[in-house]
Amino acid sequence: MKEMPGKAAPETPPTAGRAAVVLLSGGLDSATSAAWARREGYRLSALSLDYGQRHRCELDCARAVAGTLGITDHVILPVDLAAFGGSALVDQAIAVPKGRSDEAIGQGIPITYVPARNTVFLTLALAMAETRGAGALVIGVNAIDYSGYPDCRPEFIAAFTHLAQLATKAGVEGRPFEILAPLATLSKAEIIRLGLDLGLDYGLTSSCYDPDAAGRPCGACDSCRLRAAGFAAAGAVDPRAT
Amino acid sequence: MKEMPGKAAPETPPTAGRAAVVLLSGGLDSATSAAWARREGYRLSALSLDYGQRHRCELDCARAVAGTLGITDHVILPVDLAAFGGSALVDQAIAVPKGRSDEAIGQGIPITYVPARNTVFLTLALAMAETRGAGALVIGVNAIDYSGYPDCRPEFIAAFTHLAQLATKAGVEGRPFEILAPLATLSKAEIIRLGLDLGLDYGLTSSCYDPDAAGRPCGACDSCRLRAAGFAAAGAVDPRAT
Repeated sequence: MKEMPGKAAPETPPTAGRAAVVLLSGGLDSATSAAWARREGYRLSALSLDYGQRHRCELDCARAVAGTLGITDHVILPVDLAAFGGSALVDQAIAVPKGRSDEAIGQGIPITYVPARNTVFLTLALAMAETRGAGALVIGVNAIDYSGYPDCRPEFIAAFTHLAQLATKAGVEGRPFEILAPLATLSKAEIIRLGLDLGLDYGLTSSCYDPDAAGRPCGACDSCRLRAAGFAAAGAVDPRAT
Repeated sequence: MKEMPGKAAPETPPTAGRAAVVLLSGGLDSATSAAWARREGYRLSALSLDYGQRHRCELDCARAVAGTLGITDHVILPVDLAAFGGSALVDQAIAVPKGRSDEAIGQGIPITYVPARNTVFLTLALAMAETRGAGALVIGVNAIDYSGYPDCRPEFIAAFTHLAQLATKAGVEGRPFEILAPLATLSKAEIIRLGLDLGLDYGLTSSCYDPDAAGRPCGACDSCRLRAAGFAAAGAVDPRAT
């Protein structure tokens, strides 16, 4: 937080005690955004979705991250997006692309895109937030190193915020609903530096789309490559690297 | 469909063969909107949500309605909204209000409101539509006799349409996404007359929030009362009345 000139820094953040639901996938970005929200003083509940992802070990990572951040209200909700098919991340019949060129990553929408995934995630977090009386959602979307998914863009977040105001009891009763996307404009290296400053242990997080049975990353999918490039640019060592 | 003056009516509707996903709860409204979409020529897939509702017999009704309309692509997706609690429709510890006055129904947001329900339903339908290459969703929301839920209003539908354009691969690739809410401005009596004109058997549908073990309606909850008033105003007999 920036200090205002001529004004003492507040002892507690202005958001202290406000309730928020954080989407916690178990990956690097969501763990960083959760650590950021805790630093900002939000009282956090966490939601993880068990959506038939082939990288299911990330749910164990989500539990570990929630534990290390002291989040005790953590719901892991099954929602079987695999029933619809159509993505390499949920459909075992479609191969995860490996070893794509840096130019190819981020160009177009890849086969690892899960249909309407962030919309589904934010919507379920919104439902959870209503039952908790929470006025904010925290999501680790990022529009810089984002693999080309349409539902990571700032205009998507703005549209969802507008929808949330109209869709909920809280909005109707005049309480505003905020969607916090603290990583939206950060590069992967900046995200990693932020998390390290916050004392986050990235060894607890998993980013790989196609880990082995022990949860070890493949090192070759788009997500592993973006992570490795981010750690390199941040001048840091990834505790979970292959 | 209105005939244009000086122009022959088209032999097939302009929407013939366009794919759409219809949200089919098994209730009166969604069945009517599905029958309407079939008449309009849409090639329909149907989605029903098994969301922990206490009126689970409506899922059998959804199957029966899909069957009678010839919809073979019908997904019943479990998503455990009861894990969040907070509504009489999913939380067995909260009683469904019975015998409320006509003035009370439609005033404020009732305890039967399921947090963010229509947002969750539309979002999952959007995910299914993406995997089917469908460019339209059909939802039986109604802003007239609607029990006071915030996510039944026209401005909610407009906001969701905008979100869908931004959130999906189809939208990014320039294919428009339509949300069809054919009942939005109809009274319950007008909905029932439309369904009867379309040959729909309302005996296959269930509206009650608290039916008995055999699926028979209670006759006293808000939904039963709105349905009974609608049939009376339409001058028709409800084949599923108590």
